[in-house]
Amino acid sequence: MATSTRVTVWNEYRHEKQNPEIAAIYPQGIHGAIAGYLRGHGCIVHTATLDEPHHGLTNHVLDNTDVLIWWGHMAHGEVKDEIVEQVHDHVLRGMGLIVLHSGHFSKIFKRLMGTTCNLKWREAGERERLWVVAAGHPIADGIGEYFEIPHEEMYGEFFDIPEPETLVFVSWFQGGEVFRSGCCYRRGQGRIFYFRPGHETYPTYHQPEVLRVISNAVRWAKPVERPNTTYGHRPEPIEPLK
Amino acid sequence: MATSTRVTVWNEYRHEKQNPEIAAIYPQGIHGAIAGYLRGHGCIVHTATLDEPHHGLTNHVLDNTDVLIWWGHMAHGEVKDEIVEQVHDHVLRGMGLIVLHSGHFSKIFKRLMGTTCNLKWREAGERERLWVVAAGHPIADGIGEYFEIPHEEMYGEFFDIPEPETLVFVSWFQGGEVFRSGCCYRRGQGRIFYFRPGHETYPTYHQPEVLRVISNAVRWAKPVERPNTTYGHRPEPIEPLK
Amino acid sequence: MATSTRVTVWNEYRHEKQNPEIAAIYPQGIHGAIAGYLRGHGCIVHTATLDEPHHGLTNHVLDNTDVLIWWGHMAHGEVKDEIVEQVHDHVLRGMGLIVLHSGHFSKIFKRLMGTTCNLKWREAGERERLWVVAAGHPIADGIGEYFEIPHEEMYGEFFDIPEPETLVFVSWFQGGEVFRSGCCYRRGQGRIFYFRPGHETYPTYHQPEVLRVISNAVRWAKPVERPNTTYGHRPEPIEPLK
Amino acid sequence: MATSTRVTVWNEYRHEKQNPEIAAIYPQGIHGAIAGYLRGHGCIVHTATLDEPHHGLTNHVLDNTDVLIWWGHMAHGEVKDEIVEQVHDHVLRGMGLIVLHSGHFSKIFKRLMGTTCNLKWREAGERERLWVVAAGHPIADGIGEYFEIPHEEMYGEFFDIPEPETLVFVSWFQGGEVFRSGCCYRRGQGRIFYFRPGHETYPTYHQPEVLRVISNAVRWAKPVERPNTTYGHRPEPIEPLK
Repeated sequence: MATSTRVTVWNEYRHEKQNPEIAAIYPQGIHGAIAGYLRGHGCIVHTATLDEPHHGLTNHVLDNTDVLIWWGHMAHGEVKDEIVEQVHDHVLRGMGLIVLHSGHFSKIFKRLMGTTCNLKWREAGERERLWVVAAGHPIADGIGEYFEIPHEEMYGEFFDIPEPETLVFVSWFQGGEVFRSGCCYRRGQGRIFYFRPGHETYPTYHQPEVLRVISNAVRWAKPVERPNTTYGHRPEPIEPLK
Repeated sequence: MATSTRVTVWNEYRHEKQNPEIAAIYPQGIHGAIAGYLRGHGCIVHTATLDEPHHGLTNHVLDNTDVLIWWGHMAHGEVKDEIVEQVHDHVLRGMGLIVLHSGHFSKIFKRLMGTTCNLKWREAGERERLWVVAAGHPIADGIGEYFEIPHEEMYGEFFDIPEPETLVFVSWFQGGEVFRSGCCYRRGQGRIFYFRPGHETYPTYHQPEVLRVISNAVRWAKPVERPNTTYGHRPEPIEPLK
Repeated sequence: MATSTRVTVWNEYRHEKQNPEIAAIYPQGIHGAIAGYLRGHGCIVHTATLDEPHHGLTNHVLDNTDVLIWWGHMAHGEVKDEIVEQVHDHVLRGMGLIVLHSGHFSKIFKRLMGTTCNLKWREAGERERLWVVAAGHPIADGIGEYFEIPHEEMYGEFFDIPEPETLVFVSWFQGGEVFRSGCCYRRGQGRIFYFRPGHETYPTYHQPEVLRVISNAVRWAKPVERPNTTYGHRPEPIEPLK
Repeated sequence: MATSTRVTVWNEYRHEKQNPEIAAIYPQGIHGAIAGYLRGHGCIVHTATLDEPHHGLTNHVLDNTDVLIWWGHMAHGEVKDEIVEQVHDHVLRGMGLIVLHSGHFSKIFKRLMGTTCNLKWREAGERERLWVVAAGHPIADGIGEYFEIPHEEMYGEFFDIPEPETLVFVSWFQGGEVFRSGCCYRRGQGRIFYFRPGHETYPTYHQPEVLRVISNAVRWAKPVERPNTTYGHRPEPIEPLK
């Protein structure tokens, strides 16, 4: 418990390089904004991006990651299947995974959920309110009854995901939609949190409540220490059978 | 499966007798509106109200009820504890229970949930949209992606209930709130559905989608047929212990 | 509700053709045993097997299937990926899916679960007791507190599946293991039930309780009728935004 | 996060005073055995027992308790209803609660669950194996695939509780039963863990795995820090309604 959590923040990192307005919001990239906050809150943070070799996610990196944060949008298809399988394998063996915003359509999230992860969306810069519906959940620590993001992309139901094991946030959008915005899952020995906010054209990842939720989720998703699960043939019954 | 479901619709039935405007909306009472619809859809329907002896809920009535529907608001405290215990006992032994709107504060719902069942509310006649978040659930049968109630009382989170086993509807309110509006539970051998809409000053229980949901819930909550559960001392191990 | 449920029973159908002892237990194949029972209980039943063209699962067949039952074991790898994708797509659009025994390792189940679906096993012909832990669930209809299978293959935890939305049965095995044997899920608009019993060398699918559970699961997994979910761009907000 | 968790261990403390054989197993009482372990693992521990004034659970004590542990058996009926209501209120406002073994029949557990919490039992000193079915859950931290208690009272299904939000352990008993032995819930802002082992005639609370699970549960159940939930009338809509 005393050791620091080792976080890898993965970002597609294309919007920031191609669009000056987005670069102005996130001069260090979306990963840089999130990494900076987490470093200030006791985490050991590494970053990785799509255009690095192996997308920056070698087995060495993954083996030294307690919690992986994932932001992607326009280039999900360029993520190599073999890397996705390695991430998948690490999650099942205990690595935490936090999937942000448009990461709902990433290969790794769809692989873990088993569904299309499709949804409705609208870019109208409308107001979003995230209501806490799991009052005592550690991911809501330090968060009021709701918090508001002044301008965001709308995501609306039906969101084609498995029913969350715990639903922490429900979003209200000004234009008439709701969305399950904070969703907890366990898969194998790993924990997964999907968190909705974060369209690249808004300064969402500079907002304190959003960063606090991500930081809470990192703590929640940190692996437990247990011996490896064994599978397959188990020859010995507990005692002679009759 | 072929036999008709026996439904008892329980209504406090005070507003309708005291307020002519409400009586104009529900000339047969709220129970009458719901009972009429269900009779037209293959159920055998009985009604019961607060001011009847035993509140109309004798053991004979309960023994012959597959699903009990509950609407109450201004007189929760007048419901006798012994009747609440009898209803509670019947639910645990398999009777379905559908709790409507302000029934969230009824003794029987609080007894079964174990929490305060408190919430936020506002009477502004605002628009409500109920979004389906459990796409394949039988309680959503025949319902579109969402349906709208033009004027309703607002109920807002945090709603102090146990996390629903299945969350079927989430409401959006014009004024900025969301609410978990369709919540499924099992307790003992019985199934429970909480459904939010139905303030007495609006014609909510004349709206086809609302009635369809109630009718779906009746079918969903119908008891299974199983031998009674046994509890207590179970002397015989499966084989001599060593 | 009045129309009969259309069931397709899919079987790998290799063991029965290769091993005379298994053929003696299931002269019509495992699919034949299950299909026969369901036909006697009001279902319209079709069967399909691995070695038929398209494994017997053309889009025409799937389009006319309410609930698909799946048994496979030694040849999971021979099931074509494109057929798996078609089945997956039909489940998400509402088709029920019942996965039996060694089907835990089928491509379609792993695709839907997102995990390895691995487990422990032992072939010692030991006694299995399936205890009902969801007392009021429709899949337990007509089943006592537990039922016993005199000789079965053991499956043991940890079973690498997502936490079931409802856990209906837990198995006790004579040799010292437990297993989550009846597991309910929803994915997209479809419902999925995993049911453990059914090793090919035992007459498990002739046992009345096992057949009753499968028949209950068919009824539970039958699709609802709802308009198609829409995804993607949703231009109109409910009112002009400010 | 850096401050120590304040735990109150409540024990009925009658068996130990009345039965020399039990006193020999727990010379400091069951509460003493648990408190000693937790003190050695970084908690600030207080104890309280039935025969103290207010059962040792004044509002001052409860206000200074992060997590309350509860063991009771022969005198549930002597616990005053007003104390039960105060504990209930504290749980809903965030205090963690760990209910042990025969505490399943305590007033506070039944109050929070809303069901009878009844079960089957047998005192035959048989072998119990607790299998981990939630591989990555923090309450299983440091625990192997299963652990064994050589002699324990049997508790068997059906256990009349709400379906656990997370099921961490399932017990196998030598005599043929299974039991949901580690069950997580949230109620209001508080977290609750039921943990089965601990019959007073066995040295269960000296066994390292059992103590480790209790210690893990304390950490898991620790309150979050959030502003109080508000309920009731909420006058202002977000904008003028039309």
